[in-house]
Parts: sequence; C-alpha cells; structure tokens
Amino acid sequence: MTNLSPLQIERLKYQPKLPSSLANGISHLIMNEGSATEAVANKEDIKNLFKNTYGKPTVTFQTSTEAVECSQRNVGVILSGGQAPGGHNVIAGLYDALKQANPENKLYGFLGGPSGIIEGKYVEFNDKFIDDYRNTGGFDIIGSGRTKLETEEQFQSSWEVCKKLNISAVVIIGGDDSNTNAAMLAEWFVAHNADIQVIGCPKTIDGDLKNDQIEISFGFDTATKTYGELIGNIERDANSAKKYWHFVKIMGRSASHVALEAALQTQPNITLISEEVEQKKMSLSSIIDYMADIIVRRSQIGKNFGIAVIPEGLIEFIPELKAMIANLNDVMPALEKDSKYTNGSDADKISIIENSLSSENSSVFKSLPSLIKSQLLMDRDPHGNVQVSKIETEKLLISMLEEKLSQLKKEGKYTGKFATQSHFFGYEGRCAFPSNFDADYCYSLGYNAFALINFGMTGYLSSVRNLTEPANNWLAGGVPLTMMMNMERRHGEMKPVIKKALVELDGPVFKKLETNREDWAMNDRYLFPGAIQYFGPASVCDITTVTLKLESESRLAEV
Amino acid sequence: MTNLSPLQIERLKYQPKLPSSLANGISHLIMNEGSATEAVANKEDIKNLFKNTYGKPTVTFQTSTEAVECSQRNVGVILSGGQAPGGHNVIAGLYDALKQANPENKLYGFLGGPSGIIEGKYVEFNDKFIDDYRNTGGFDIIGSGRTKLETEEQFQSSWEVCKKLNISAVVIIGGDDSNTNAAMLAEWFVAHNADIQVIGCPKTIDGDLKNDQIEISFGFDTATKTYGELIGNIERDANSAKKYWHFVKIMGRSASHVALEAALQTQPNITLISEEVEQKKMSLSSIIDYMADIIVRRSQIGKNFGIAVIPEGLIEFIPELKAMIANLNDVMPALEKDSKYTNGSDADKISIIENSLSSENSSVFKSLPSLIKSQLLMDRDPHGNVQVSKIETEKLLISMLEEKLSQLKKEGKYTGKFATQSHFFGYEGRCAFPSNFDADYCYSLGYNAFALINFGMTGYLSSVRNLTEPANNWLAGGVPLTMMMNMERRHGEMKPVIKKALVELDGPVFKKLETNREDWAMNDRYLFPGAIQYFGPASVCDITTVTLKLESESRLAEV
Repeated sequence: MTNLSPLQIERLKYQPKLPSSLANGISHLIMNEGSATEAVANKEDIKNLFKNTYGKPTVTFQTSTEAVECSQRNVGVILSGGQAPGGHNVIAGLYDALKQANPENKLYGFLGGPSGIIEGKYVEFNDKFIDDYRNTGGFDIIGSGRTKLETEEQFQSSWEVCKKLNISAVVIIGGDDSNTNAAMLAEWFVAHNADIQVIGCPKTIDGDLKNDQIEISFGFDTATKTYGELIGNIERDANSAKKYWHFVKIMGRSASHVALEAALQTQPNITLISEEVEQKKMSLSSIIDYMADIIVRRSQIGKNFGIAVIPEGLIEFIPELKAMIANLNDVMPALEKDSKYTNGSDADKISIIENSLSSENSSVFKSLPSLIKSQLLMDRDPHGNVQVSKIETEKLLISMLEEKLSQLKKEGKYTGKFATQSHFFGYEGRCAFPSNFDADYCYSLGYNAFALINFGMTGYLSSVRNLTEPANNWLAGGVPLTMMMNMERRHGEMKPVIKKALVELDGPVFKKLETNREDWAMNDRYLFPGAIQYFGPASVCDITTVTLKLESESRLAEV
Repeated sequence: MTNLSPLQIERLKYQPKLPSSLANGISHLIMNEGSATEAVANKEDIKNLFKNTYGKPTVTFQTSTEAVECSQRNVGVILSGGQAPGGHNVIAGLYDALKQANPENKLYGFLGGPSGIIEGKYVEFNDKFIDDYRNTGGFDIIGSGRTKLETEEQFQSSWEVCKKLNISAVVIIGGDDSNTNAAMLAEWFVAHNADIQVIGCPKTIDGDLKNDQIEISFGFDTATKTYGELIGNIERDANSAKKYWHFVKIMGRSASHVALEAALQTQPNITLISEEVEQKKMSLSSIIDYMADIIVRRSQIGKNFGIAVIPEGLIEFIPELKAMIANLNDVMPALEKDSKYTNGSDADKISIIENSLSSENSSVFKSLPSLIKSQLLMDRDPHGNVQVSKIETEKLLISMLEEKLSQLKKEGKYTGKFATQSHFFGYEGRCAFPSNFDADYCYSLGYNAFALINFGMTGYLSSVRNLTEPANNWLAGGVPLTMMMNMERRHGEMKPVIKKALVELDGPVFKKLETNREDWAMNDRYLFPGAIQYFGPASVCDITTVTLKLESESRLAEV
C-alpha cells in the first residue's frame, strides 16, 4: 500500500492487547471444560438437528508453563455480512496465532464472503499482506458478502474446496445468521466425517448478537462512538445556534441497541426505542404527541431547538404501520402486473393503492405525508417487499410534527418556531478505524479462534469476556453455538437460529434512559464525546460503551 | 459544568501553544510597523468611506526584555455568524492576555451575537466561566447571531452600551461580512471620537476569508478534518461492500474550499468544484455526462461503486439553473398573492410555474426530477427567495444519473448496476472539538487581539501567520481591515466588503485535484484520515490542512 494517511501509518504500528491467558502463545495453553450445555429454548428440536455438536461444554483457556507441539494445519477465514470495525484485526489475530503455533501453517482468506468458499475463490495470507491491514477499518482485505451458507450443495462444494487446499478448519466472522450457518456447517462436516472444524466470531455493529455467553459483538463499540461523536457535535451546534430541531436517524433495523447507546453517550432531548414502541403498542400519533409535547414545553421556556434520536427500524415496530406495510406487500405483486397501475402517474398509483388496501390500512396510508407515500411506492426488494430502509422515517416524523404543531398553534397551545434538520448515520461508522477496544477485542477473538482450532473444537463461537476490565483480565474460551439457539419461524418454516437480543425494557441500559428522559428532554444534559482517540489518557482511549458498563454492573449486582 | 465526557475532561487541561513572540506575555512586546497599505481594489472609494482608518500599516509583534505597564481597560467580545470550531479558544486567549496584562481588566461577552452589544445583553467572564469552555467546540459560551451591525442606530446604541460598561475595545469574531462591519464600526467610533477600538478575528469553516494577509480562517481545519473522517469511512465501506455509489454533499454555499480540502484528504472518485462549473460554464447535462462517463468506465472494470463529493452551493453555479432560480425568484412574489396558485395542488403549482417562467427557464424547470421541483416550491427565505440550501443537490444528481444510465443501458453502452446512498455533512463539523491546530491558532488569535488593543490599534484584523510551521514559529501581528476590501454590488447598491476568496482554478490546491482526478476516478486511491487525534504523534496530531500546505509550498516556490 502506498498513499497512507498519517493516522493510518501510526495505527499500523499499534500492538493490540491480548488477555493474559493467551499472552504466552498458543503452545502454552491449557483448555478447561465446563459442564455440558443446552440450547436456550426448543432443546429437543435443536438437539435433533445438531446430533453431533449439541450439548458440548463451554471451555476456557489458561496459560501453561509446559509447551505443547502444534501440528501443521491450514485454516480458511470468511467475512460474512455487513461491515463492522475490527474485522481486519480478527484475521490478524488468527494469522499471528497460527504462524506462532507453527510457521508451516497457512491461512487462506475466502473472497467476497461465503461465496468464496463455495466457488473456491481465495488468497493466501503472508506477513506483508496482513501488516497492511492491522488496526484498520473495513472488510476490504478479502471483501464480504451476503450469500447464506446453508444448502447441501453449498456444504458439498465448500468441502471440495477445503480438501483441495488441505484446510482443516474454517473461521466464519459474522452476525447471528452467519453463526447459525457456521453451526450447521460444523454439524454437516462432523456428520460427513469431513474432519474440518468450524469456529464462529461474533460480529455486528447492531449489538444484537449478545447473550449470557457473549457480552457484545465486535464493531458496536467503534460504530456507536462514531455516531456519538456526530450527535455530540450536532448537539453543540444546536445549543449554540438555538434555532433548529435536529432529527438524527441511526442505523439498526431490528434492534435499537445502537440508538440507545448513542443516546446514553450524548443525552439528547428525545430518544425513541423501537422495542418500547412495539411492547407498549404505541401508535404513530401517540409518538407524535409525545414528541410534540416536549417541543411545546421546550418552546415555553424559550428553547426552540433540540435533538431527537430515532432508530432506523422504528416504523416496522409501530403496530399500525407494520400491518399496513404487510398489507402493501401482499397487494403489490398483483398490482405490479396490472398495466393500469404500472402505466399510471404517481397520483394514480397512490389512489389505486388506497383502494386496494383494507379500509383500516388504507386510512393509515392516507395519513402519511406524500414524500413517504412515494417512498413506499419505490422499487421493491428482491423478495418483492417494501424497502423499509429507504423510508426516511426522520422526515416522516418531521412532516407529521409540522402538521401537529401548526394545529396546536391554531388552538393557541403553541407559539414557538419549528425549524428542522435531518440526518441519517450508518455508513459513517461501519468502517471507521477500530477503537482501541475493538482493535484489542477483535485481535483477541481471532487469536482465541485459533486456540479453539488447535484444541480440536468445532461448532464453537470464539468467546472473550470480562470486557469492562483491562484487556489482560479478559477471559478467553469458547461457547458451543447450539447453546445460543432456539427455533423461530422464517419464511413460514421453523428454523434453528441464534436468538437475537433486543433491547430489554427492564434491563439496566434502557432503565438509564427511562430514568433520565424527562430531565434530558428539558434541561439540555448534552454530552460531547468527541472523536475516537487512539493515543493518550486511558480514561479516554481505553473505555468501552455505556451499554457494556451498565450491563456488567448489573450482573455484578446480581451476584 | 457537571456531566462531562472523558475527552472533555482531558481537553479542558490542554494548554494551547502560542507563537514565541507572544509567549513572554503582553507586557513584554514591541510592535513593529510596516509601510502604509492600500485596499485590494477600488482604493479611492474605500479611502473615502474609511477616512480615519484607511491606509494604516500592517504590524508585527516581537518580544522585548523590558516590561511595559498595562493600564486598566475593559473589553467586549462578540461571536458573529455560523459556528466554527475554536471560537471558545479565541475568547480564552483574549481573556488570558487581558488578565495577565492587568488583573483589574474586565472582559464582557455580548450575548447572542451582534444584537448583544446593541441591546446591552452581556456577561462578565471570570476564571471559572472561561475554564469550562477551554478547547471545546461550539459558540454556546455566549451564543452567536446573524444580526448585521451596520446602521447608524446600531452603532449609536453599541456606543451607549460600551460607555455604560466602560468598554474601550470590542473584539468581533466573524467571517467576511462581520469583519466588514467591524471595519465600519471602527471607522464610526473614530469619526465620533468614541475612543473605542475594534479588532476583528477571522472565523469561518468555509475557508473563503483568506488573502495575502490571512492564510486561513479558524475552524476550516477542524471542520474539514471531521468531514474527511466521514468521507474516508464511507470510502472504506464502499470499497468493502462494493455495491453502492455514495454521493456526499459538503457544506459551503459560495466557495468550494471545504469540498476541495475534504477531497484532497480522502481522494474520492469524483469531486465537483462550483468555481470550475461556473468558469467553464458547465451545463447540468455536461456535469451528468462527466459523472456518467466515470460510472460507466468503472463498471466496465467491475467496479459498480464509488464516491462523489459535491459542494453544497453547486446548483447556484450552474449557469442555466442560476438563471432559472433568478427567474423563479422574480415570478414567485406575484404568484404567492394569486389564490389560483396558493390554493392549487402541488401539480397545479408546478404547471402554473412552468407557464410563468421564460421559455428557456421553463424547459430547465421541466427537466428537473419531481422531488427537486417540490423543493423549489417550498417556503421562501425571509427575502422571498428560493431556499437553495434546502435543495437536495445530491439527490438531483442521483436522479438525473439514473435516467442517463438507464438510457445508456438501452443503447447497449452500459451494463452495470447503479445503487446509491446520499449524505450531507455540515452541522457535524461546525462544533467539533477544535483540532490542536485550531485550538492553538484560535488561542493565539485571541491573545494577539489583546496585544493589538494594548497598542491602541483599531480597524485591524488579528493576524497569525506562517501556520504550516510549528506554533512557536508563527508570526503574530495585525492587518488593517480596509486593506482587504473592495466595492461590490449588494442588493443593487455598491458596498465596501472584504473580498471573498473563491477556489482559484490556477492555484496549487485545485491543480492537485485536476492532476490526479483521472487516476482517482478509476484507481481507488482512497485515503482514510480517521478521527481527529488530540494526543500522540505530532505527525498525526499537529498537522494542518492539505490546502494550507500546498498554498504555503507554492508561496515559497515563488520566492
């Protein structure tokens, strides 16, 4: 690589920290086994589907004074799904462990995600190759992809490719779905006596791959810090100019962990949480009422400005919109074959749709601003569904609030000004340089993945815990993937999946928001996290998220 | 202040660097005068308007071993216009200099911008107050405002307020317009024997307040680094996912310095520069052709992704759109009094407008996507004009490119995919924690402003130069504001104004883009600047912009 930024040059030199249990190297490890494990739910179903890999114990590593010889082995690695900061360090940690164990070992990277192992597209890593990517963001080292590794044919061709390269273990770096597929591949390889191990690594900025075994997926720390930086900067701008309400939509379709963490870092005036909206069955108009009330009360104390943080997936959690979108997805395939619809103007299309929906859903549709109606008409996704990610929820809320506030103004209940700016942050944080935390965590996950491989484990997730402590106190080990699974309906069929973690309304993280929400709404408790720092005081450079801190404190309080 | 982020706590401790000439304090300074100066153009007009303050020499400071006594004086300070990182440090530098000179001195901050001095709204600073804001972003310390200080009545009431507080000098921190007003106020005070000095400080993230005397306005460094961080992160995401073209609009209405600097920091595939569009009289369709050509050629080598950087003000520089918008501004006032228009549907309004514009402008209007047409219909600004800042230029370009590419596809000239994401960055960077450069520069500007006051100067801009050198080599002094002025037509009248610096197409900064643009278009020379660093290697923490570096190198080459 030529042409590096000054920060890139310095970050390439950073030596990520390892848990002390791993710090003496792969050849000086003892593996301790816990007791047998069970799936979180649907135990019998999961056991039946994973006959060979179910029920294995969790394991932990500790250093040993005695050195063990490590036989030669080749390993393959795959990046799966959306980018998360730190992926390159997982590969670097894996590479370093593998080469330290035996310099004859080889690490192959499959290109473009899971399709790389299926189609036999790969590179072999060497020192120079890896060194260019240490402590950098992105998945550009080998690319990523969204192919699901789940069919018999895919497993078969993956096996062929591994045989050709003499690969005896595959590491899959991915989210809940990718790790579910890792579990299936592990089971399939054992069932077919393929003698190929499969180890997963927990990746996703969404923060929804966590449970009793996994404290957090990698990337969440860096991504939320990047969004926190931007929201904090905008808060300071709002508080200086005192003339805009800023509506900030934050990436995260199914869970609101990212919006919640970003809000705890910055303490904005309004934070919406999808899980709360769903569980309390809040209607769109009740959300607008809640927001309008804060806007009105702030204007009464002379504050015609503020910040609202909104999770990307919000509208799928508002019951009436969820029902309307489902209805729309049902009627659209027929409409799109109807020339009266396809040849109609936008206005024609809208009126045809209004007549095609059930009366309840039709009135929900009619109540939406025209910008949002057009966005609902846009190109379908490959399954023919409305592309919810294209809906500008932040503008939907602004438009409905404008209407609500102008009505309140007519009624003499509001005399303020409502000027707005909207923002959407997502792509800005997925490929940031990993924070020191993510750089260390990812390197440890990759290093630890090779420790699991070296002890012959398969169907395990690389696990590094105790993450609010300094890195040398982190605990390294492995968790059977089946332990985190249950059965869920997907496209009409019951499937084994790793359970997604949603924001828990009775958990310590949401409670922190709930307790402070009225104070933050009115009193401008803005916090300005600033840019992620890599050098300097540990209090700035080595801290992790508020979420992790609160969850860890709550766990300790229970003990 | 309670409730500080970890970075805030550390940044409050940072001691900004001063030029060595100022480092021995206000009482150990000698001021050297250069020769008399002249306005950059319209010398006679400017001289006539500024009879008392015209033609003064530039001045520079050097340390002296002899201490001078500093008499007691009160000073007022105003933040004017849009936020820029470092404003708080100008005030902190001013405060420290003033208190070091004489502990009896008082610093007053006028609240909410220039209206504070007119209406007599102020605070008196003390140590605790100032300490809470050191090295932080934002203008929230006293707020800012956009009132123009230019009428006789405003000057008169400012004088009354100053007399009441026994203020003998006012520091105005602002952009070109605010400093023009500072020059007028300085002249007025002298002409009225008010015995009140006025000193300006060069502020604006836009980077268009620069000339032979001013290397750069403060805030440009931090703001462009923040945008550079985000564009770099998005480039890494694009290069990992390889599925989106990202269109990034960057704040900056009249000059493209910010977009250009951000592009030099990150080397995206496409960068549009408003000044080039205007000077080469590029039509909207020729811009679309230029962009489509790169998109097509990249798709031919398998790259259906990329990054395009677009300056916010672009559409005002495209001749046909500029003419159409001017025509629209002419016809709208009448239409808005016409009930047929105001009561019409959006479609009605659009057709009425199409009939009201000249035939040429009407066909330009008709060629625009419907989203942009509606944005052109939105609320006028206070002058009744189209709000150009509300036009989503990034979406305009995307929409027109979609059309162009689908036509090329029909003609068999394009077989790629064109999926897009759009972004607008502006508010994210105006209130970031100032970079070390801006923290030092601003502190020096404020400190130096008091040095000018102490030597009795008025109508001067605080000047700190030689900025690509380490801070101790910086040169401190003052430049007569009238020296940077010329006459320009504003609202139909010739007015004295400080000349705005536009991007020069034959300058070293634009040349750097021009020379590399084809290489960057095709070969992905993405640079990833990462987050602004405040601690650590000087190569990362203490560098300033590419713009300043290239301009300084070019100046040295000329010598």
